[in-house]
Amino acid sequence: MNLNFSLDPRLENDTVKLATFPLCELLLMNDSQYPWCILVPRVDHALELMALSVAQQHQFLVESNYVSQMLTSLFEPDKLNIAALGNVVSQLHIHHVARFKSDISWPAPIWGAHPVIAYTDDALVKITDKISEYLQHHPI
Amino acid sequence: MNLNFSLDPRLENDTVKLATFPLCELLLMNDSQYPWCILVPRVDHALELMALSVAQQHQFLVESNYVSQMLTSLFEPDKLNIAALGNVVSQLHIHHVARFKSDISWPAPIWGAHPVIAYTDDALVKITDKISEYLQHHPI
Repeated sequence: MNLNFSLDPRLENDTVKLATFPLCELLLMNDSQYPWCILVPRVDHALELMALSVAQQHQFLVESNYVSQMLTSLFEPDKLNIAALGNVVSQLHIHHVARFKSDISWPAPIWGAHPVIAYTDDALVKITDKISEYLQHHPI
Repeated sequence: MNLNFSLDPRLENDTVKLATFPLCELLLMNDSQYPWCILVPRVDHALELMALSVAQQHQFLVESNYVSQMLTSLFEPDKLNIAALGNVVSQLHIHHVARFKSDISWPAPIWGAHPVIAYTDDALVKITDKISEYLQHHPI
């Protein structure tokens, strides 16, 4: 565990923390338009995936596959979009987005497509409860 | 080697083949606005990264790291963007794009941002020669 790790304040502001995995923090983007998770490896000063060690990269895959399977099971999307961009927030973070042919941006990528629409309090409780229940029943 | 593998015709049409790696085809997107490579695992019917076996995923990381290092060495970008989207072309393919603060789309993602501008014949020879030379001197 990297006790010195701190999340970028913009990521902290835009997301809700869902879980602490062995390598990454699992965050939910507070945008009600898409089920959108973000994995942030707790590795200081990492900006690119290739900055992780081989062991960290392999663990990242375990956690990325877990999130992909979770999003697929819970939301039955038409497609997953997985991306490490970081042009605005440079701290390494990897988006995992459940996409639907019916979503507002389909088939375009979501980033910058439409302004974020935060969850209502009720909707945020509903989705975080749904994900928490999955996490409890499917230990990583 | 998967002899039955065939590249999606849209990927074939939009790219130039650079190399055949152990798992993936390495393609250059024919868009002169960004140094933009695409890795396509030769795995039939794979739509998502999680569809690959663990061994294939680990090999994908080797090849992705190689491409990241190659783009960094050759073009000295400000950031790499790595993404598995597939909303339009469903065959699993992973974008690796060298991004610059001076590029036309920065800091937005490139997909759908601006129409493709194909390389001129001379410019295409120049960039493929540059990459071929790197590939020759850095065996994967």
